[in-house]
Amino acid sequence: MVVVMKPGATEEQIQNASKKLEELGFRVHRVDGVNQTILGAIGDKRGLDPRQLEVLPGVQEVVQITKPYKLASREFKREDSVIQLDGVAIGGRELVLMAGPCAVEGEEQIFTIAERVAEQGARVLRGGAFKPRTSPYSFQGLGEEGLKLLRRAADAYGLLVVTEVLGASQVDLVAEYADILQVGARNMQNYALLRAVGQSEKPVLLKRGLAATVDEFLMAAEYIMNEGNHRVILCERGVRTFLTHTRFTLDVGAIPVIKEASHLPIIVDPSHAAGLNKWVMPLALAGIAAGADGLIVEVHHQPEKALSDGEQALTPEQFAELVREITVIARVLGRELPLHTNARARARTHAHAHVHAHAHAPALRN
Amino acid sequence: MVVVMKPGATEEQIQNASKKLEELGFRVHRVDGVNQTILGAIGDKRGLDPRQLEVLPGVQEVVQITKPYKLASREFKREDSVIQLDGVAIGGRELVLMAGPCAVEGEEQIFTIAERVAEQGARVLRGGAFKPRTSPYSFQGLGEEGLKLLRRAADAYGLLVVTEVLGASQVDLVAEYADILQVGARNMQNYALLRAVGQSEKPVLLKRGLAATVDEFLMAAEYIMNEGNHRVILCERGVRTFLTHTRFTLDVGAIPVIKEASHLPIIVDPSHAAGLNKWVMPLALAGIAAGADGLIVEVHHQPEKALSDGEQALTPEQFAELVREITVIARVLGRELPLHTNARARARTHAHAHVHAHAHAPALRN
Amino acid sequence: MVVVMKPGATEEQIQNASKKLEELGFRVHRVDGVNQTILGAIGDKRGLDPRQLEVLPGVQEVVQITKPYKLASREFKREDSVIQLDGVAIGGRELVLMAGPCAVEGEEQIFTIAERVAEQGARVLRGGAFKPRTSPYSFQGLGEEGLKLLRRAADAYGLLVVTEVLGASQVDLVAEYADILQVGARNMQNYALLRAVGQSEKPVLLKRGLAATVDEFLMAAEYIMNEGNHRVILCERGVRTFLTHTRFTLDVGAIPVIKEASHLPIIVDPSHAAGLNKWVMPLALAGIAAGADGLIVEVHHQPEKALSDGEQALTPEQFAELVREITVIARVLGRELPLHTNARARARTHAHAHVHAHAHAPALRN
Amino acid sequence: MVVVMKPGATEEQIQNASKKLEELGFRVHRVDGVNQTILGAIGDKRGLDPRQLEVLPGVQEVVQITKPYKLASREFKREDSVIQLDGVAIGGRELVLMAGPCAVEGEEQIFTIAERVAEQGARVLRGGAFKPRTSPYSFQGLGEEGLKLLRRAADAYGLLVVTEVLGASQVDLVAEYADILQVGARNMQNYALLRAVGQSEKPVLLKRGLAATVDEFLMAAEYIMNEGNHRVILCERGVRTFLTHTRFTLDVGAIPVIKEASHLPIIVDPSHAAGLNKWVMPLALAGIAAGADGLIVEVHHQPEKALSDGEQALTPEQFAELVREITVIARVLGRELPLHTNARARARTHAHAHVHAHAHAPALRN
Repeated sequence: MVVVMKPGATEEQIQNASKKLEELGFRVHRVDGVNQTILGAIGDKRGLDPRQLEVLPGVQEVVQITKPYKLASREFKREDSVIQLDGVAIGGRELVLMAGPCAVEGEEQIFTIAERVAEQGARVLRGGAFKPRTSPYSFQGLGEEGLKLLRRAADAYGLLVVTEVLGASQVDLVAEYADILQVGARNMQNYALLRAVGQSEKPVLLKRGLAATVDEFLMAAEYIMNEGNHRVILCERGVRTFLTHTRFTLDVGAIPVIKEASHLPIIVDPSHAAGLNKWVMPLALAGIAAGADGLIVEVHHQPEKALSDGEQALTPEQFAELVREITVIARVLGRELPLHTNARARARTHAHAHVHAHAHAPALRN
Repeated sequence: MVVVMKPGATEEQIQNASKKLEELGFRVHRVDGVNQTILGAIGDKRGLDPRQLEVLPGVQEVVQITKPYKLASREFKREDSVIQLDGVAIGGRELVLMAGPCAVEGEEQIFTIAERVAEQGARVLRGGAFKPRTSPYSFQGLGEEGLKLLRRAADAYGLLVVTEVLGASQVDLVAEYADILQVGARNMQNYALLRAVGQSEKPVLLKRGLAATVDEFLMAAEYIMNEGNHRVILCERGVRTFLTHTRFTLDVGAIPVIKEASHLPIIVDPSHAAGLNKWVMPLALAGIAAGADGLIVEVHHQPEKALSDGEQALTPEQFAELVREITVIARVLGRELPLHTNARARARTHAHAHVHAHAHAPALRN
Repeated sequence: MVVVMKPGATEEQIQNASKKLEELGFRVHRVDGVNQTILGAIGDKRGLDPRQLEVLPGVQEVVQITKPYKLASREFKREDSVIQLDGVAIGGRELVLMAGPCAVEGEEQIFTIAERVAEQGARVLRGGAFKPRTSPYSFQGLGEEGLKLLRRAADAYGLLVVTEVLGASQVDLVAEYADILQVGARNMQNYALLRAVGQSEKPVLLKRGLAATVDEFLMAAEYIMNEGNHRVILCERGVRTFLTHTRFTLDVGAIPVIKEASHLPIIVDPSHAAGLNKWVMPLALAGIAAGADGLIVEVHHQPEKALSDGEQALTPEQFAELVREITVIARVLGRELPLHTNARARARTHAHAHVHAHAHAPALRN
Repeated sequence: MVVVMKPGATEEQIQNASKKLEELGFRVHRVDGVNQTILGAIGDKRGLDPRQLEVLPGVQEVVQITKPYKLASREFKREDSVIQLDGVAIGGRELVLMAGPCAVEGEEQIFTIAERVAEQGARVLRGGAFKPRTSPYSFQGLGEEGLKLLRRAADAYGLLVVTEVLGASQVDLVAEYADILQVGARNMQNYALLRAVGQSEKPVLLKRGLAATVDEFLMAAEYIMNEGNHRVILCERGVRTFLTHTRFTLDVGAIPVIKEASHLPIIVDPSHAAGLNKWVMPLALAGIAAGADGLIVEVHHQPEKALSDGEQALTPEQFAELVREITVIARVLGRELPLHTNARARARTHAHAHVHAHAHAPALRN
């Protein structure tokens, strides 16, 4: 249930309504919008007469939410959530590009790739430090060393960092280095992890599970939001079906369905869906055409030498071509891909900004 | 196995190579291209030394085909097949739009819709006269009366006709009225029907089965082509997966995969995949962005009154909006959607052309 | 809607009720049971007051059917349908075994296999004469010659014949030789074929489509029944999922679900589900344990030489072992597998019966 | 790679071979069988000449393992693994029944159910204390209080305890009370958790993920085994497909496939696959018929009052019927279900044994 306050409701009225809800046994989530404040009320509403609330001073309306998810639902919050992060807006008019290697493999590799993707307009550097591998005998990532390299490479080129957290106990460590915490597809229903990232202050990139329905996907987001972290970015990365010509089946239909059901931003990972370099571009374009807010793409300057998933990485040249095509398609759809600014120039400015942004842990990263 | 003749090989050389193949026990399919002739050889090639063929005069090379499909494969024919039909080219630079109601319901309905879709640049009118319904108690279509109405409406607005054939015994009847014979998803492996349309002179729109792999889809095309009819248009319309938020899961990844594996054109049916009006547009855009050669879309001027599938039909206004968006996206992709000519003007010209084109059966359609 | 007549209702009362239903615009299907007659009424029942019917003399009750299928539903007919055929009862207490090669390949092959499976208690000989092959270049079956061999081999060993019909135009030909007409999985929604076998007097073995839901499966049965042929035997043969360790995924859960929803018998085809010889036995046992009324199994005395699907055929020895295990499990489930009578002795008796049963076409089979 | 020592190889020979492997860069897993010891060698074997090892004293043979999983593979260990636990053998000739409520709800509930299932021959009590719920607003279990109740109820009736661990940080707590640690389907690829239970001394019940292939399932077991814990019990509980008539699709084919590929025991969870009480029995029987080593079944004496999944729980009476049927089927399959001993009598004896078995933490449980 959502209590929508009138524009101009006073702080006292808001606190009064909030208190009333708590007295009625609800847990209250307050969201202060530009014009209005809304109060999400979680709990058993059977036997409640909504008029008890509608008559309170400052209350505009009481909305019943019929979906199993509340905080993630469009009924709870009508406008798109735009996640503002160090000058990057995710979920707004601008499309966001996150790019980088599957795994951080070493200093030269990550700096080279960071430079190349920043030049093309990527705003977020991706790269795994802790890798969830199907086999315990595969390369498991560089661990904290990988996190440090990722941070340094991102700072050098004015990028944000997104990287995966494999377990609840890793959240603090990863949050020290990353700007966005990634929850992988295999962990979409790892509730201990969802709760842990929900208690973090960092935004979360939540990948859809291989066999997750849209409702289950949004319920996983709800777990995170229910802990207080409302900055969730959803990511469609393909589901498992009987088809094998692509590694997974990209569910482009989920994008408009989720856009209607939820206010959260959703991006597409065409790399894992494709499985092969040559199918990444068409899947990326299809995802954007279907309404996604951006992409997370694997890019490697030497795919044949990559320690994991090299066969699905784009080369920097292919990434540049993808960016060109998306720039044009974005306009058709009323979206925009920010101009390719001089990455080095931006790097300098941003690097400065980062000193502040990450001032809480500078020692660790130097 | 494919024997590629040199550009400029003489008719005698071609016939000689063809005869040699037959002597070796192969069945030969000859395809005369603009510059070159190729001979497809179907049969058991074990124990054959390809040099026996390579030394023949006029032979340029002998290509082994590793796929289970031969005639449909890109190895057999390297250039895209462009199906020319009464001034409409399917599979070339221009995208093709096929549009119309799920089922022909009556004269006013089909003429109204034909006019509206023609105005927006559709070149082919769709509409079912024989409907494959899950229930024997549902509306089964108007039958031959529906075919007549469809033909007349299409002629009035300069459109071609595509409509479904439900069984081998219906092929002649439907071919009398239609320009393109549609084989539905449920019949994709109805081999009696595939053979029958393979013996027709009309191009075939082959819809992908709900559970068909790409190989099975191309094998179904192969059945048609093996009977001599090489004018097959493939249609991706969604497959059945565990997902239910759209009626079927549009497999956009199949488009580039098929484009690489086969020379045949492929269009997308976003209406059946979507199941609901509101998801048709994003799926249509995604399909085009992934590289499809066109769309087949359900359009109805009174969706709420449609006798079947009204909930997934676009209104003519929505169709117009879709056309506008595709026009722009097409250019990004190096494709083109022909300008919206004045449909009535075109109708006049085409109607005239149609008198010739369909001169073999004018009485039936008037 | 179903009108259940009282036990002992007179013929006049039945006809009167039937006439009343027709006057109300319904199409009537009459089923005379041992104790009672029921009248299935197909048509639009909106606005109908069932009391109009309940007050008629001889009417016991009026049952609304909520499922999309009517004639196939348990609501329409409460007792299990038992299909009696030349001394074989399908759907009753006894389990039925249908066995034989994938395809009829020649006289020696089919006679050898027929003898071996008859010895073990099979009552029906399976074997394809017209094969639905994914590739047009694969062995397509011996055609009518195959039908003749199948009939002769079955008669020699006192077996019934089940074989596949590929299209509506083949129904008469196949019905001349076969006791049961098989509609294959790929044709489960080939409505022209369903209607054609629905007009035949022979029982139909309807295989479930690769992507068919239970409702769609029963709707396909409904198409057949709606033409007047109520003797439909359902066959679960695995559906297509993301799993590849077996060729298809045997949906054992469908068996109790269908048993509850429908009165029709259902058997299991473990061979196509398994894809490999070694998985046939466990799938067969699982199907019987889940409640199936019998099996249709591929058996070949020389699997390594089979022209199609040899890798999934049981040897006669393996089939014998399967029969032994099922015999014991059947008893646990309150079912029975008839004793292994001396097949030759039975053959003599049955062969005699067959002279009558197939007296309409004796020349063809001798 | 596996080095199989000769029967009768001396401890010195074994240690010598082991040392040699370590010198070559392998990690060694030693398994002492009844007759023979085998050494599993994990590492890069490229460039290794196996004769280096075959010539060592006491070495019988060197086996290359081609599967991605090593320790879990049948090539690594040819005989079935039988997990011995307090008088219960899992994976041997006897079938094992694990039964109990979905969630522990209170003392009376869990004691009542424990008594009822023990009476029928269940050897392990199941019940969730920490529940992985799709919604954060659903009942999440009683936590440690639930663990305590579960332990006390199990001890009272001579049962072992299996219960789910939701995250790595919970392993120690749960291991204090449980005999078997359950990793749920949603966590099958939660590698942090797999590693944590791999370091525990308690056996692990590993449930198959909703979209996991057989290889991925065995790779998850490999993660656990690679940490040193070889006592893994696999559990097939249905996968997600397009089918909805049962909650998940029980993949009975996976049972023989896994039995061939791996030496680990595998049981079936028919409750989650069924989703509804009425389909549990046929799925349970199908699973046993396909070769499973036992069942884990939800049983509740008041299903209509259950706080979670009541609709899929069997009543104790239905459980008793299931046990009767399985007892008979087991014999057909050369298996056995231990006689229904007087549970209370057994309880007394076992309770005594438990004092020793759980002597390390008696205070916690009283």
